[in-house]
Amino acid sequence: MNQSFKLATILLVMVITCGIALAQFAKPEDAITYRKAVMQVIGHHFGNMASVVKGEQTYGRAAFETNAQIVAMMAKLPWEASLVPGSYSEGTTLKEKALKDSTGYRAAAKKFEEASQNLLAAAKSRDLKPIKSKFGATAKTCSSCHKAYRK
Amino acid sequence: MNQSFKLATILLVMVITCGIALAQFAKPEDAITYRKAVMQVIGHHFGNMASVVKGEQTYGRAAFETNAQIVAMMAKLPWEASLVPGSYSEGTTLKEKALKDSTGYRAAAKKFEEASQNLLAAAKSRDLKPIKSKFGATAKTCSSCHKAYRK
Repeated sequence: MNQSFKLATILLVMVITCGIALAQFAKPEDAITYRKAVMQVIGHHFGNMASVVKGEQTYGRAAFETNAQIVAMMAKLPWEASLVPGSYSEGTTLKEKALKDSTGYRAAAKKFEEASQNLLAAAKSRDLKPIKSKFGATAKTCSSCHKAYRK
Repeated sequence: MNQSFKLATILLVMVITCGIALAQFAKPEDAITYRKAVMQVIGHHFGNMASVVKGEQTYGRAAFETNAQIVAMMAKLPWEASLVPGSYSEGTTLKEKALKDSTGYRAAAKKFEEASQNLLAAAKSRDLKPIKSKFGATAKTCSSCHKAYRK
């Protein structure tokens, strides 16, 4: 395979990939609206679990597991929408650093995804000790990512 | 069991149930924000599928299935938040009829939940003919519920 053919192939893949990514959101504002909505839903269900962990609410096994399931599923959703050029100036708390340092941002996001999967596994065990520990570990991935990438 | 004991039991169950429901949302505005966020995410992923069904986007099996999975999962979420007293006046397109006719509202919601499960099953079959048919059936459950309960 000669060099120009290789380059053409790489460019073609890039164009297709960007095309797919852009096709997801017609405008940068749509990406902002989407990721804020996802974070809102995650925040609600994480908050439900927080009030149990803090002892403000009684622990209900099924309800806790449902909350953990929703968070684990939704933890996969907001990242593509967070890397849309032009979606950092208004109506968002996300720093443009997310795009500029997308490797670091994706790594931080991955930590949250994994932690929320661990929390779900703990929720399924229905044993409050690991649940509290995994909840704390997940909360740490939230705050470290917010510290680095949130305005 | 005498009548007053029965009544006391019923009232106790109602208080506990309402307590749990209210505990989910500190204020009616929180219920509005939550259900709007859920609908936003559903709308985005349903829109992704719509553009494939309309032929505006190329059909990608994995992507379509992911969109169907997200909609089927999220289809279970907005109903409790839609039945919070005081959450119908401002900042919402939901009619108070949802609360007054909660049986009808829940039935309409159930139709959407079931249709989105059927759409997911079709998406897993990876055969475009049933996918388009089940997508259309799901869209009908959206519009009939919106027609009845949306301002």
